[in-house]
Amino acid sequence: MAVSIQSEKAPPEEKNGKTRERRNRNDSVIDEAIAVMSEKGYAATSIQEIADRVGVLKGSLYHYFSSKEELLFRIIEKSHQDTSRISAEVGALDLPPLEHLLEHIRRTSEWFLRNRERAHIYFTEVRNLSGERHAEAIQWGRMFETDVSALVTAGQENGTIRDDLDQRLVTRYIIGTMNNLRSWPSRPGSKKQFGNDQIVDAAVTLIADSIRAGSD
Amino acid sequence: MAVSIQSEKAPPEEKNGKTRERRNRNDSVIDEAIAVMSEKGYAATSIQEIADRVGVLKGSLYHYFSSKEELLFRIIEKSHQDTSRISAEVGALDLPPLEHLLEHIRRTSEWFLRNRERAHIYFTEVRNLSGERHAEAIQWGRMFETDVSALVTAGQENGTIRDDLDQRLVTRYIIGTMNNLRSWPSRPGSKKQFGNDQIVDAAVTLIADSIRAGSD
Repeated sequence: MAVSIQSEKAPPEEKNGKTRERRNRNDSVIDEAIAVMSEKGYAATSIQEIADRVGVLKGSLYHYFSSKEELLFRIIEKSHQDTSRISAEVGALDLPPLEHLLEHIRRTSEWFLRNRERAHIYFTEVRNLSGERHAEAIQWGRMFETDVSALVTAGQENGTIRDDLDQRLVTRYIIGTMNNLRSWPSRPGSKKQFGNDQIVDAAVTLIADSIRAGSD
Repeated sequence: MAVSIQSEKAPPEEKNGKTRERRNRNDSVIDEAIAVMSEKGYAATSIQEIADRVGVLKGSLYHYFSSKEELLFRIIEKSHQDTSRISAEVGALDLPPLEHLLEHIRRTSEWFLRNRERAHIYFTEVRNLSGERHAEAIQWGRMFETDVSALVTAGQENGTIRDDLDQRLVTRYIIGTMNNLRSWPSRPGSKKQFGNDQIVDAAVTLIADSIRAGSD
């Protein structure tokens, strides 16, 4: 993938120049790690290559991260934090289940598309974490699934979502479709491709038409 | 993933005992390579581990495969051959576009679910091939996409598939949903999980209800 990532950097609020510089360097390390890992996969990524891309000596990277695994964990942790915040924001809108679910799908899908490389790592590299980090990341994945699952169940109960299919299958269908959006044809600046907004609109329309009650 | 793969082994038709033994060993190597690669990823897979699982010395494996990359290529090649054969079989039924497409989705999805580990490698490890092997595997992926795309276009033209969404987006949606089926909840022998037939039925129903003309 050669898609550039639009990372959300912290605003430059620090008064202290060194702290700011350290934070910026920290962000560059994360950004380059995301670029390399999403292209080559975690196992084939070397700390040396990340250091080369950031433009520092390999040893310097260990001021920021104790290991390649910690770097992976931080990337996944940030993805979880971002998608959890989206989930909370949509929850605060207090919409009925089907509308809540569709808005959740829309906003989370937008995040996946704005952060394709990060999302790719989030979905495919959790297996490379070990011990508590692995357990925590698996738990985050379950939380996301539980959110969607609860909304599907609530929609089936109030008669707005089809109930001829088990909620677990409908849930996996929704999550699977969202996870795959990052492979949809999009290339910034190309006329033959689609903008993120068009992709999200199409996905929400297709999912809505398949799960709405009356489809069966 | 701890799902066992049901490989399609060649029937024992050879008269020559040595040839049969060699072919069986060849199959075991492929089967163990699939198991290790789908669990750990290609980059983290060692020839040593595959040899240990087959129960032979590492050097012996090179009688069957010249390199780890060749092993990966053979796995992907076989997946392409299997799915191409399914595509040809469905084509021979001479169905109208929408029915043709849905039957293609059904049978290919069944293959994905019967061969979860192999399908996982097929979808995620092509980037580890190089040179002509990489070019060939990319070409196979395009052929699959072209097949689905042609059916979506034909269905839009004869008025059976919705045409308010670009055929390329509908195509990616279908392929994305199919690719994700291997992560749907299925565990042989568990009452809480679903059989492959239930998963395929649900997926075909959801896709059909979202793409059929009149959904818009």
